[in-house]
Amino acid sequence: MTSTTIFGTGNMANAIGGLLADGGASVTYISEGESGTAPITGDIVVLAVPYPAVDAIIDAYASQLEGKIVVDITNPLDFSTFDSLVVPVGSSAAAEIQAKLPASKVLKAFNTTFAATLASKKVGELGTTVQIAGDDADAKATLAAAVEAGGVSAIDAGALKRAHELEAFGFLQLTLAAAEKISWTGGFGVVR
Amino acid sequence: MTSTTIFGTGNMANAIGGLLADGGASVTYISEGESGTAPITGDIVVLAVPYPAVDAIIDAYASQLEGKIVVDITNPLDFSTFDSLVVPVGSSAAAEIQAKLPASKVLKAFNTTFAATLASKKVGELGTTVQIAGDDADAKATLAAAVEAGGVSAIDAGALKRAHELEAFGFLQLTLAAAEKISWTGGFGVVR
Repeated sequence: MTSTTIFGTGNMANAIGGLLADGGASVTYISEGESGTAPITGDIVVLAVPYPAVDAIIDAYASQLEGKIVVDITNPLDFSTFDSLVVPVGSSAAAEIQAKLPASKVLKAFNTTFAATLASKKVGELGTTVQIAGDDADAKATLAAAVEAGGVSAIDAGALKRAHELEAFGFLQLTLAAAEKISWTGGFGVVR
Repeated sequence: MTSTTIFGTGNMANAIGGLLADGGASVTYISEGESGTAPITGDIVVLAVPYPAVDAIIDAYASQLEGKIVVDITNPLDFSTFDSLVVPVGSSAAAEIQAKLPASKVLKAFNTTFAATLASKKVGELGTTVQIAGDDADAKATLAAAVEAGGVSAIDAGALKRAHELEAFGFLQLTLAAAEKISWTGGFGVVR
C-alpha cells in the first residue's frame, strides 16, 4: 500500500489526500502546528502548503526527506501583484526545492489542477488529469499509479525542468480564475 | 468586415484563415515567395510563420505594420533540443516582436491551439478556445470578435507580459504531443 504524508490541511491538502485515499493509500496529515515535531511516516510526501512555508519544512525535515518522493504542488505567485512569480526567472519552485533536498526525489504535480477538480475528478465535463514532472522515472510512476488508483488520470510532463512550464501554466490559470474568466471548477483540462 | 492578412501558407495559416473566413472576415495570404513584395491589405496581420522567419517580415514591412494589429502565433522552441525556447529567459517571442514594432498592437494568440483543433473547432469533445494576450484592449476585442464569429471561443489572457506563460503553455503542449502523450487533435482545453 502506498503511504503518504501530507503537509498542510487546506483545500489542496484535503483534495489530494482524499484522492489518494480513494485509491487505497494511507494518508497522514501534518498540520502547521504539528510541523517540526510530527514524524514523516509516508514514502510519498506532499508539500501542500504555500510556497513561502516550504523552507521551514525543509529546515525541520531535511534528513527525514532523504530518499523520499517529495511532491511540490506550489504556484509560487507574488500575491501582492498577481503579476509574476517569486522564484528566479527561468527556474521553478520545484527546482529550488530539489536543490535544497538533493537526496530526495522531487516531483512537481497538482499545481495545474484546482482543489475542486481533484475532489470532483472533473474539469467541467472532462476527466481531471494531474501533470507530473520530475527527474526520477520510478518516483513519477509511483505517484501516477497512486493518482490513477484514485480515479484521476496522470500524465508524465517530462523532466523536473518542465516544472517551469507547469508553474507558468498554473500561474496563468490562477490569473484567469481570479479575474473570473474561468471558474474554480473548470480551468485547463487535458484531452488525450 | 474584418480584413486579415496572413503571412504563411502552412497548417496554422490555413487553419486560422479558415476560422476567420468562417466568421465573415476577408483573408489574404502572403506566401514566403511573395513576402517582401506583396502589400499588407488587412487590419489584422497574422504572422503564421516559424519564429525564425519573423524578423525578415519585420524588416520588410515595419512601416506597413504601424498601427496594425499584429498577431504572433509562434512557439519559439529550440527544435534542435526540444528542451527550451530561443527567446531570452523570462521574455517571450511576442515581447521581442512588440519591441521591434513599437507602433503596432502586438497580440499573442493561437499558440496554445493546434491547427487541427482550430479547423475542427473542438479539442476532443470540448469546444476550442483561443487565448489572447496583449496590451491593447481594443485590439484584443477585435481579434476575439473575429475568432468568435468563426465559431471558436476566445479568452482574454491578460497583458502582453502573459505571453511568457502562453509560450510556456504552448511549449509544454508541444512536448506532450511530440512524445505522443496527447494527440494533435487534443491537448489543453479551456473549461469556463
